[in-house]
Amino acid sequence: MGYKVPVGISNKHLHLSDQDLAALFGADHKLTPYKELVQRGQYAAEEQVDLVGPKGVFKSIRIIGPTRPQTQVEISKTDARALGMDPPVRESGKLAGSPGIKLVGPKGEVTLGEGTIVALRHIHLSPSQAAEAGVKDKDLVDVKTYGTRPVIFEDVLIRAGDAHFREFHLDTDEANAAGLANGNEVEIVKK
Amino acid sequence: MGYKVPVGISNKHLHLSDQDLAALFGADHKLTPYKELVQRGQYAAEEQVDLVGPKGVFKSIRIIGPTRPQTQVEISKTDARALGMDPPVRESGKLAGSPGIKLVGPKGEVTLGEGTIVALRHIHLSPSQAAEAGVKDKDLVDVKTYGTRPVIFEDVLIRAGDAHFREFHLDTDEANAAGLANGNEVEIVKK
Repeated sequence: MGYKVPVGISNKHLHLSDQDLAALFGADHKLTPYKELVQRGQYAAEEQVDLVGPKGVFKSIRIIGPTRPQTQVEISKTDARALGMDPPVRESGKLAGSPGIKLVGPKGEVTLGEGTIVALRHIHLSPSQAAEAGVKDKDLVDVKTYGTRPVIFEDVLIRAGDAHFREFHLDTDEANAAGLANGNEVEIVKK
Repeated sequence: MGYKVPVGISNKHLHLSDQDLAALFGADHKLTPYKELVQRGQYAAEEQVDLVGPKGVFKSIRIIGPTRPQTQVEISKTDARALGMDPPVRESGKLAGSPGIKLVGPKGEVTLGEGTIVALRHIHLSPSQAAEAGVKDKDLVDVKTYGTRPVIFEDVLIRAGDAHFREFHLDTDEANAAGLANGNEVEIVKK
């Protein structure tokens, strides 16, 4: 049997730079943590913004803190269709050439030149968890799911390090396709 | 290499009984074919209805003809969430215990007692295609996809017979999760 990892489903959300946080919520505004996440130091914030695409709007989308060097909006392909966009599937932080989007906050608006992606599914592991699973940072593994719609996700990226903790991140399309709910366990099937 | 099958993505749609067709569009109304489908004798009809769930509405949803013994509404899990429903993943025609839904047509409304499902992904094959692929009706096979989000769909149902023609039917969640578009080829990996 392979190493077991619980599922964490990412609904559409965004990360903000300090500059964009100030533009949307006012100068010197600080994010207010609403719920701690499994990944160390990360939290869902109280703050929300609207995402405005060419063909649609999503109201009140959650910000994940803390702030980052560059603003990043993560949506599913289903969300993208509703917005009238076609963002690439990308690893977090790799935003070059991805489409922009308009953000509307309580104190202002920001029109990004780039930064909208469909997040590449990945597994977070601490160093000891990675050792136990027999994998290392940047490895690609296959992940087997169980339930009513069993699937093997191929070429799933391993992200291992001190800031990481055992969790398989996938988006709502992927979770729905596999019939997965938060906390369901999947299994690493090594290459 | 396994047998190749093109993808056909099912967006939300419904099949109507003669009785429900009459209730929604008027007595003696006949469906008007709009586009022939790959599966023999089936067509997207000109006619559309609204789907009304506990928490949401989808306007102008396409009817697939011809009529059937029982009305069947097929939606994705993403659609189901928007409607406020939790239908089971089911093979076509297996509707016992599935949730009802309200349909609104130009001449009347129908509130179904059951009939809303998330369609079980499946592969249609003619008898000669099934022979070529080395599978038979009701077999379960694994299906490998290619592209930016490669996946193996496990336990995919084979539906082989004279009314069937080579096509892998999956819903929009599954297509988005695998990064598939209509006509992309996938491969049967036999059990």
